[in-house]
Amino acid sequence: MILIKIGGGKKINLDYICEDIKTLINQGEKIVLVHGASVVRDEIAERLGSPTKTITSPTGISSVYTNKEAIDIFLMTYSGLVNKKIVAKLQFYGVNAVGLSGIDGQLWKGKRKKAVYSQEGKKIKLISDNMTGKVTEINVNLINLLLDNKYLPVVCPPALSEESKIINTDNDWAVAVMAGALKIEKMVVLFEAPGLLKKFCDESSLIKTVDKNKIDKYLIYAQGRMKKKLLGAKEAFRLGLKKIYWSDGRIKNPIINTLKGVGTIIS
Amino acid sequence: MILIKIGGGKKINLDYICEDIKTLINQGEKIVLVHGASVVRDEIAERLGSPTKTITSPTGISSVYTNKEAIDIFLMTYSGLVNKKIVAKLQFYGVNAVGLSGIDGQLWKGKRKKAVYSQEGKKIKLISDNMTGKVTEINVNLINLLLDNKYLPVVCPPALSEESKIINTDNDWAVAVMAGALKIEKMVVLFEAPGLLKKFCDESSLIKTVDKNKIDKYLIYAQGRMKKKLLGAKEAFRLGLKKIYWSDGRIKNPIINTLKGVGTIIS
Repeated sequence: MILIKIGGGKKINLDYICEDIKTLINQGEKIVLVHGASVVRDEIAERLGSPTKTITSPTGISSVYTNKEAIDIFLMTYSGLVNKKIVAKLQFYGVNAVGLSGIDGQLWKGKRKKAVYSQEGKKIKLISDNMTGKVTEINVNLINLLLDNKYLPVVCPPALSEESKIINTDNDWAVAVMAGALKIEKMVVLFEAPGLLKKFCDESSLIKTVDKNKIDKYLIYAQGRMKKKLLGAKEAFRLGLKKIYWSDGRIKNPIINTLKGVGTIIS
Repeated sequence: MILIKIGGGKKINLDYICEDIKTLINQGEKIVLVHGASVVRDEIAERLGSPTKTITSPTGISSVYTNKEAIDIFLMTYSGLVNKKIVAKLQFYGVNAVGLSGIDGQLWKGKRKKAVYSQEGKKIKLISDNMTGKVTEINVNLINLLLDNKYLPVVCPPALSEESKIINTDNDWAVAVMAGALKIEKMVVLFEAPGLLKKFCDESSLIKTVDKNKIDKYLIYAQGRMKKKLLGAKEAFRLGLKKIYWSDGRIKNPIINTLKGVGTIIS
């Protein structure tokens, strides 16, 4: 079983990804797809007059400030617009996809953080209306039920809290927990870069291999979202994953090539 | 098995509906839920600067003009915002709901209308970019797979065309086809009125019973959307349905009371 994570960037080529998924399924592979939608979310948020706000924790990790309006925009763009367009495209390529959010069937369950702290200059502010949390539990039965009946699950946030509230969640962390729960051995992560880069924006500075036991050493190369991806990777290995492929979602045969060694391999 | 259809009005009380669903499930009943989201769709469309446009066919049936932007708004509001909020609310009441659009697993498949005609004053205009169609096929296996595994399917448009394009579809017609395919005997339709009214807006003019063989006779009482609901009902009976309950989605115990005779019964 391969877990594929697609980033939310606009240059990601969904047709190339769907073609590869079709090929792999024809070869008998089982696939679970998880996707982002951050760029579309930010665009719609802007158009609705509620632009996405980011907060930075005192430890330097940035995340989206998620109040009720942000949750609504999240539902609209992740579970609605982007999820269903990916499902329709997979259907077009002959793959019987079913889109699910973390809410559906309690697929992604987590604990809501009661209080979140935000570093604003030298001040630390307490934010209490933030609807976020970390995924801790996966409904493995629902995923396997779909896979066993030849459906490809297309999964996205948000998640469901223990009190059945809708919560935003770190996608990379949720994917790691999912990889552990599903006993995934291979995970492919596709984004708008050839892999992990030594120099930000310099695509020739690709790091070909990363030792899974030395992920912390690479955090200095990771800009913005990449930091979270590395922390997610670390958690996924802790939960039993064997190999992560980080690769370019913009090029032809993005999945098949990365499984052959194109991109960054963490193992 | 009961098929429940909830209208897209804002006064519909979801808590009351969820409470009844929980009670019925505890009694061993299997339930499939289909919902609308027209009011939320219109609000978001307005906020996005693309207000919903309606076209009227030369035969007097009105429908939403659905170009690409309208499909996006459809996905955001039906499959995203409203579907997931209903699923989360059902989860809150202890019902393990899974939300699906007609696209997922090809749940609702239809034929896209190549050309739609719109009556504008005395002129008839041909509209070619309208992404609409009628549902003709239901993936009964997916619904039964979920029901057999104790999940409650929460279904909404859009549907998928034969060419795997996303199409808007008449919800009441789709529900009728679904009732036929699932061999449903009882269907409950909840909206913002006590049932079919003889005088529009006069809630005391409730029609208690309608003969399923004389539905056409009642078309004169049906304003706007109600006309489509009656036509959908006619099709559902043609496909084998035995009884339809039209009732008030705003009151306490809306489903349990209507099954006891409150509202309009068509049979």
